[in-house]
Amino acid sequence: MVSYPQNHTNLKNIIAVSIQRPEIIMAKDGKKNSDGKDVKKMLEDFGENLAQEVHRQKAPTFKTLSRTKSNIVYEKKLGYLTLGRATEERNFMNIGQTKRFMQTVAIATKCHKFLAENLHTSIRGLFYQLKFSLGEDVDENIFSEQSESNPLIEDLEASLGVKREDLNLNANRRGVLVGNMKVIDDYGGERTETDLSKTGRSGWAVPSDVDNDIEFVDVKAKYVLVVEKDAVWQRLNEDGFWKKENCILISPQGQAARGVRRIIRKLADKGLPVYVFNDADVWGWYIYWTIKTGSMNLAYVGADIATPEAKFLGVTLSDLEKYQFLKKMTLKATEVDLKRAQEMLGYEWINQHGEWVEELKKVLKLKVKLEQDTLQGPRLTFVGDYIREKIKNKDWLP
Amino acid sequence: MVSYPQNHTNLKNIIAVSIQRPEIIMAKDGKKNSDGKDVKKMLEDFGENLAQEVHRQKAPTFKTLSRTKSNIVYEKKLGYLTLGRATEERNFMNIGQTKRFMQTVAIATKCHKFLAENLHTSIRGLFYQLKFSLGEDVDENIFSEQSESNPLIEDLEASLGVKREDLNLNANRRGVLVGNMKVIDDYGGERTETDLSKTGRSGWAVPSDVDNDIEFVDVKAKYVLVVEKDAVWQRLNEDGFWKKENCILISPQGQAARGVRRIIRKLADKGLPVYVFNDADVWGWYIYWTIKTGSMNLAYVGADIATPEAKFLGVTLSDLEKYQFLKKMTLKATEVDLKRAQEMLGYEWINQHGEWVEELKKVLKLKVKLEQDTLQGPRLTFVGDYIREKIKNKDWLP
Repeated sequence: MVSYPQNHTNLKNIIAVSIQRPEIIMAKDGKKNSDGKDVKKMLEDFGENLAQEVHRQKAPTFKTLSRTKSNIVYEKKLGYLTLGRATEERNFMNIGQTKRFMQTVAIATKCHKFLAENLHTSIRGLFYQLKFSLGEDVDENIFSEQSESNPLIEDLEASLGVKREDLNLNANRRGVLVGNMKVIDDYGGERTETDLSKTGRSGWAVPSDVDNDIEFVDVKAKYVLVVEKDAVWQRLNEDGFWKKENCILISPQGQAARGVRRIIRKLADKGLPVYVFNDADVWGWYIYWTIKTGSMNLAYVGADIATPEAKFLGVTLSDLEKYQFLKKMTLKATEVDLKRAQEMLGYEWINQHGEWVEELKKVLKLKVKLEQDTLQGPRLTFVGDYIREKIKNKDWLP
Repeated sequence: MVSYPQNHTNLKNIIAVSIQRPEIIMAKDGKKNSDGKDVKKMLEDFGENLAQEVHRQKAPTFKTLSRTKSNIVYEKKLGYLTLGRATEERNFMNIGQTKRFMQTVAIATKCHKFLAENLHTSIRGLFYQLKFSLGEDVDENIFSEQSESNPLIEDLEASLGVKREDLNLNANRRGVLVGNMKVIDDYGGERTETDLSKTGRSGWAVPSDVDNDIEFVDVKAKYVLVVEKDAVWQRLNEDGFWKKENCILISPQGQAARGVRRIIRKLADKGLPVYVFNDADVWGWYIYWTIKTGSMNLAYVGADIATPEAKFLGVTLSDLEKYQFLKKMTLKATEVDLKRAQEMLGYEWINQHGEWVEELKKVLKLKVKLEQDTLQGPRLTFVGDYIREKIKNKDWLP
């Protein structure tokens, strides 16, 4: 017979809450993960499995995918970073894991409640809910820092095969979009339809969750153009570039948030080519490769947010030869730019492309960088002409 | 007779460009500043005055308001930071000013062109235009860093009494809004009308310029609620808080950009009370006071962007006594929080309010801070209840 640590009463109480199936009338069908499974039911099964193990006096355990560096793999066939097959077991009876185990179950319990209530919050909101109370009969305060809860949310996502957005947790949002498509948004008890070609100077703010209770219809655009900087997006929007070219114009407004990466993936799934227009510097490259192959820390949701089909339109150092005026527009590359260019030459998903090797070697040789804003030099509307020419000539990096 | 420095040919050529009145057909009436003056005409007069001085062989000069600390004043009657009456003269004949004088005229020339073309850009776009060329007969490259052009843009704004948005220069935008009002946006050759109560989970992205070619109509809301964090804004939006309370719900998404400050001012001008709901920490206070009294570095546009009528709803350390559960939700105040609280006690626009002195002394005594997200602890919808109660009881800080 297994001898439980003192904490077992708390765990049982937390589980008891997590497997409650409250009689709250849901406003809509249950939320599904990307495999079509009901997320609320998954959390209930998760709790019930643990409860049965407690009942049978076995050690409660669950499995999750290992997110350590050795299990982050790049598969050329897939074209993005994902997790390998290595799993890790979380075991309540392992003293070193007991607290974190309880914390994970508490997080599952709270997310189950959010799904039942049909309400969303941020991971900060979740943290304060956990600090407030873990359930009626649990008075222990097991969370003191949010940094404790973040990796456990990932544990749960990777264990269940769901995204945090499916657990009613909002990630930070950032990014803006305009183009010939419509969005139908079922939110806060109201259904709105927005024509994203009628959003004026503002554009449409890309939300955290672009999957649940939201639909993109009448996508009439022919391709997706991603523009690193909001200021350049505004320039192109004012010119009506997306109208003339019939494209979807997106700016991640810097590094792409989960919502922007996901909507680019969804538009690529509809068959739209994806072009990215960034600075030729450490940030511009980083933003591109994050969109294209995903990132290490989000490898566990790689399939949902990476777009390997994406092409890099520019700006590139080869542009210096094609557009003479750019020669006086370069900036001195920083140590960080050069170090990053060197590192990138070591990544297999980058150095398999001869064109990128050439570009990065140019950076290391010339020691300069170039901003996309420079294309406004000759005249403000030149930015659009540059993009048109690049696409027409298929003058991009893979 | 004045002996000109070598640069005078360049200056004359730059001025010649700035006073051109190109025969471009404007799509709409000329842009006006907040006093109703035509901005393009102001730039032409600016150039013509200089040209006449050159013609009369006098030293070209212009006056601007001094933006040094000694000329930044707080007037209790007005309730915001503004510039005093001290002026500074810029003189082309002063060798130490010659280059900057030419640069300022070059900036005026470019902005005049943007207004004539009816196109906008960012200050980065302006910088690259200046680097590209200063005019047909000027081959000198007088700009090497953007940091050189920024203070000169301010010189021009303060000299002419215009905002950079009136010069077709976009400032960085950030911030989101939802509520019962409509926006009519005449942009990029198209006129769109958006009902801001039909913007779903996204809300309306507040643009850089909320004055020119844009109108806010059917403002049916009764007050404005500003919420520091986007995550908390999303929480309240999902609850339909703004519908139930009939308010305009704005998040600056951190520090308030010029566009957000300006739209708050405009809504206050329509008679709507303004309430601000922030963290009780260094950032929360800073964001509040920037909205209310403006900031040192934007004192030259203080009247346009400050809202002295604003009230601070919370969170406050007095809340700890009213809401028992908050006691376990506090965080340790950092050195920065404490230092700032001490500094704030020294500002006349803050320490004139006994309630703020009390609050800040509490911070220094208890050495804790409190986040607005904590109000999601008991239940996610508690945030809205808290705000309702605060407003009902007029329980705010001035």
